[in-house]
Amino acid sequence: MAGVPDPQRYVLTFGCPDRTGIIARISGFLADHGGMIVEAAYHTDPDSGWFFTRQVVLAGSLPFDAAGLRERFAAVAEELSAESSWQVRDTGERPRAVVLVSKAGHCLYDLLGRVASGELDVDIAAVIGNHTSLADITRAHGIPFHHVPFPADGKAEAFTEVRKLVDEHDPHAVVLARFMQVLPADLCDEWAGRAINIHHSFLPSFIGARPYHQAHVRGVKLIGATCHYVTADLDAGPIIEQDVIRVDHGDSVDDLVRKGRDIEKVTLARGLRWHLEGRVLVHGNRTMVF
Amino acid sequence: MAGVPDPQRYVLTFGCPDRTGIIARISGFLADHGGMIVEAAYHTDPDSGWFFTRQVVLAGSLPFDAAGLRERFAAVAEELSAESSWQVRDTGERPRAVVLVSKAGHCLYDLLGRVASGELDVDIAAVIGNHTSLADITRAHGIPFHHVPFPADGKAEAFTEVRKLVDEHDPHAVVLARFMQVLPADLCDEWAGRAINIHHSFLPSFIGARPYHQAHVRGVKLIGATCHYVTADLDAGPIIEQDVIRVDHGDSVDDLVRKGRDIEKVTLARGLRWHLEGRVLVHGNRTMVF
Amino acid sequence: MAGVPDPQRYVLTFGCPDRTGIIARISGFLADHGGMIVEAAYHTDPDSGWFFTRQVVLAGSLPFDAAGLRERFAAVAEELSAESSWQVRDTGERPRAVVLVSKAGHCLYDLLGRVASGELDVDIAAVIGNHTSLADITRAHGIPFHHVPFPADGKAEAFTEVRKLVDEHDPHAVVLARFMQVLPADLCDEWAGRAINIHHSFLPSFIGARPYHQAHVRGVKLIGATCHYVTADLDAGPIIEQDVIRVDHGDSVDDLVRKGRDIEKVTLARGLRWHLEGRVLVHGNRTMVF
Amino acid sequence: MAGVPDPQRYVLTFGCPDRTGIIARISGFLADHGGMIVEAAYHTDPDSGWFFTRQVVLAGSLPFDAAGLRERFAAVAEELSAESSWQVRDTGERPRAVVLVSKAGHCLYDLLGRVASGELDVDIAAVIGNHTSLADITRAHGIPFHHVPFPADGKAEAFTEVRKLVDEHDPHAVVLARFMQVLPADLCDEWAGRAINIHHSFLPSFIGARPYHQAHVRGVKLIGATCHYVTADLDAGPIIEQDVIRVDHGDSVDDLVRKGRDIEKVTLARGLRWHLEGRVLVHGNRTMVF
Repeated sequence: MAGVPDPQRYVLTFGCPDRTGIIARISGFLADHGGMIVEAAYHTDPDSGWFFTRQVVLAGSLPFDAAGLRERFAAVAEELSAESSWQVRDTGERPRAVVLVSKAGHCLYDLLGRVASGELDVDIAAVIGNHTSLADITRAHGIPFHHVPFPADGKAEAFTEVRKLVDEHDPHAVVLARFMQVLPADLCDEWAGRAINIHHSFLPSFIGARPYHQAHVRGVKLIGATCHYVTADLDAGPIIEQDVIRVDHGDSVDDLVRKGRDIEKVTLARGLRWHLEGRVLVHGNRTMVF
Repeated sequence: MAGVPDPQRYVLTFGCPDRTGIIARISGFLADHGGMIVEAAYHTDPDSGWFFTRQVVLAGSLPFDAAGLRERFAAVAEELSAESSWQVRDTGERPRAVVLVSKAGHCLYDLLGRVASGELDVDIAAVIGNHTSLADITRAHGIPFHHVPFPADGKAEAFTEVRKLVDEHDPHAVVLARFMQVLPADLCDEWAGRAINIHHSFLPSFIGARPYHQAHVRGVKLIGATCHYVTADLDAGPIIEQDVIRVDHGDSVDDLVRKGRDIEKVTLARGLRWHLEGRVLVHGNRTMVF
Repeated sequence: MAGVPDPQRYVLTFGCPDRTGIIARISGFLADHGGMIVEAAYHTDPDSGWFFTRQVVLAGSLPFDAAGLRERFAAVAEELSAESSWQVRDTGERPRAVVLVSKAGHCLYDLLGRVASGELDVDIAAVIGNHTSLADITRAHGIPFHHVPFPADGKAEAFTEVRKLVDEHDPHAVVLARFMQVLPADLCDEWAGRAINIHHSFLPSFIGARPYHQAHVRGVKLIGATCHYVTADLDAGPIIEQDVIRVDHGDSVDDLVRKGRDIEKVTLARGLRWHLEGRVLVHGNRTMVF
Repeated sequence: MAGVPDPQRYVLTFGCPDRTGIIARISGFLADHGGMIVEAAYHTDPDSGWFFTRQVVLAGSLPFDAAGLRERFAAVAEELSAESSWQVRDTGERPRAVVLVSKAGHCLYDLLGRVASGELDVDIAAVIGNHTSLADITRAHGIPFHHVPFPADGKAEAFTEVRKLVDEHDPHAVVLARFMQVLPADLCDEWAGRAINIHHSFLPSFIGARPYHQAHVRGVKLIGATCHYVTADLDAGPIIEQDVIRVDHGDSVDDLVRKGRDIEKVTLARGLRWHLEGRVLVHGNRTMVF
């Protein structure tokens, strides 16, 4: 947002079994190369005995580039028995996302507005819809829109087509922005840790179809939205972010739908942003958001 | 809170099938007798086609007392085919409550403090506990404490004793302030619309035992509490009020328990207050809070 | 949203000195003509002794149109010494708005998305900007964009031009969507009760310029946004809606700006929607939102 | 709550000018002595160029006690030009608080309940009131209550008495639980960083007297409470925590007072807890809450 652009940084994320001296080992490694840490977060999970960290280093303070950092840090990671998912992100490389939509436009409108106004730092490489209702607004933003119909007897073929369209961009995030189709297990696997869904309920309440209708029948006093990684278990993947809004007896199902939209789009945008900034680490079925 | 005490009022609550002219009929009846309405709320449920209202009238503006109002209004109620649950509360009559507790004291401490400081307008006639840990604080407030143990093989007898102790006060509210014992179906029936529970989750998530543990395993980002009327269906009765608080990956189960307490006690106090003020109408399994 | 369109309704809003029998008089009038009330809200302000109501009647249940209702109700209004601002809105007439913007696009993007997806029932007749940055997105939605520069020594002329452009649409709402220019007193007067601003702080904290910067210096733990009617007193008009979001010591001023945007756009949209639905009544410098 | 008691820990808090290698220096020092870090938080303030940290080490993992840690760490602190306020807390030493009250009891009731139920780990050494209304409940908890009247012409003498009573306990926190008297500048100085106030508004809105009355007049849609360190500037000290609750046009000033109490007591309890756990660092007029 205006001002001086942020200087280039490397974002290191990392998990390993807990033991004495991990922070000293990592920060010592960085200090030895002159690395200036500008953000650092740690978490020890007492249940599993694991340690996690996210560290942000000024690129210009190190005598090598991101590839050089990865190469040198690999020895530290091995020494600490790190999870193979450790990584170094380079903020100099702009991430890419592909967005899957159906008819409801509020999440897509919101994402497009955030990207256009420079708030969300991502290239939306393509939008794929099983209807065409959101084609015009997508193209008005200069982004390709692909229509892939999902006939009842041709879903497998449709997903094959979606997969091809998505994979050619090798995106950092596949965003299900109220896509309404259940991803097959093989796509859940392939996109594990990258496919992000927004579910229109406060999970684990109201899993599956028509959650606002379910919420109205149950007479809850708050409704919510959940941004989570997609797994083969429907609406049961690791939760990145949730939020709620108050409703009352005067609200019809349509009112819940309308109020819920404001929570859905904001919750999705927050979750996506944190994912792209490397703030979300997954351990088992839970996330840490640093 | 200090100031002039509120003048005596009659609180009329009422539900009937919707049709043209109901508000005119009720407000006309009141106006004909000089009744000054100081609060009025209406709701029409389009799904069921029912109409509900809560009206508050200055007692001094009517030429008869609460019994007189009930007697005269009965004809209007019949004319409009009102639910038999319609009623006239008299704010000049202080309501009574009995509180059931176990070991956890945060809800009881909170209720006692609210009553002692004049915030909650209710007589706590007795506190009944299946442990004695809360006997001293109860008695320090000048309230009788009854210890009724709940041995694994003597729960039916224990409930018979609880029922006797409760019923001799004919209370307007039976408050399960983290009581931890499941009411038998016959007590649910007898105390229908008067037994109020605080469940330590955002229902319908995490029904039953150890909800904070369940919430921790699922990795939710908000935890909640639900104040509801007790029915024979465990944790499934009409919801009066809910609230939530944010948690994160750094919170252990014990942290969830601690944070949750603040939500539990406030949510219970709000729900109880609304119940005692005649603000809560039940229709099917849903509530209106006027 | 989807489903059967709402049937046409008349929305009556009304304020008068409180006395016995007002509700009976109004509802009696409606019942006498067969009017089916589908929503009704009342408020008595004990400080000023005024009574306020909003009533929604099915158009098809009355034997006359909106003009006929206005004509007949005028006698009741006079009898009750109603404020001259009482009115009857017809939901069959789609309201119009003109939006004033500067460079920041988040509120405009949000409003355009809500209108395009059918959520916000308003015609945006025109967008006027003192910069051109938001011209393209406005026109992509098929809405005229007018560029009116605001040079430091030509603000009076610029406002004359804005006034001409706005007034030719006779809009129900003039929305200052982060417009950043202070309206002159004569425009505040002319658009009284129609000009709606979103201020990027939780008023009355941080009036005037750079509220997020002020909030950062003060070290607050929540930031907010305020949607209010514009009056000649800067940021002091009647408040329609406010909301807040949590921040912490790790948030820079830029982070506050970013987080605040989500609150600003949602708060503005809520306030505007309530205004357009005739839910907002003003009494003195306070609003009732029915 | 229940379960195994937490093992003894040392809590190190620390601020120094930022530079490369600070984390490595501190964590290296701890690792060299076998220190097992169970919690670690860092913050760099880009505006002032200062670095802050809070680290929690298992006492049993170090070969010396708290005094030994302080002694050895002093060399590191000097090397890094740390602020003289750096410290090592020992969770094996139970902190002490003195609470100052007036007539309103909700915050005191709440604190007493939290201490009695083992939630808040602090010894309330004494309660001092300028009225006697809260003497009984204090003594029912086995805590001494001192009555110090504050006549209009004898406030200086009263504060001398309060100071004497407070200082003999050398408390870690002096809690102004709706004390309603403005501390003189010399007490603000003496108790700097230990005197904690709860102000019944969302500061910086509604500084000074009768904030709920001010909020009602302004017509805000949310009210709040602010827990802050007391400084000589009225209601302008570093903010530890804030929270808000929604109100509407139907709420009288008395309703705001009642709703506000729930926010006041919870916000004060959170702020006090964080203070006692060494989570709050002050820099200029802002806090970091780790």
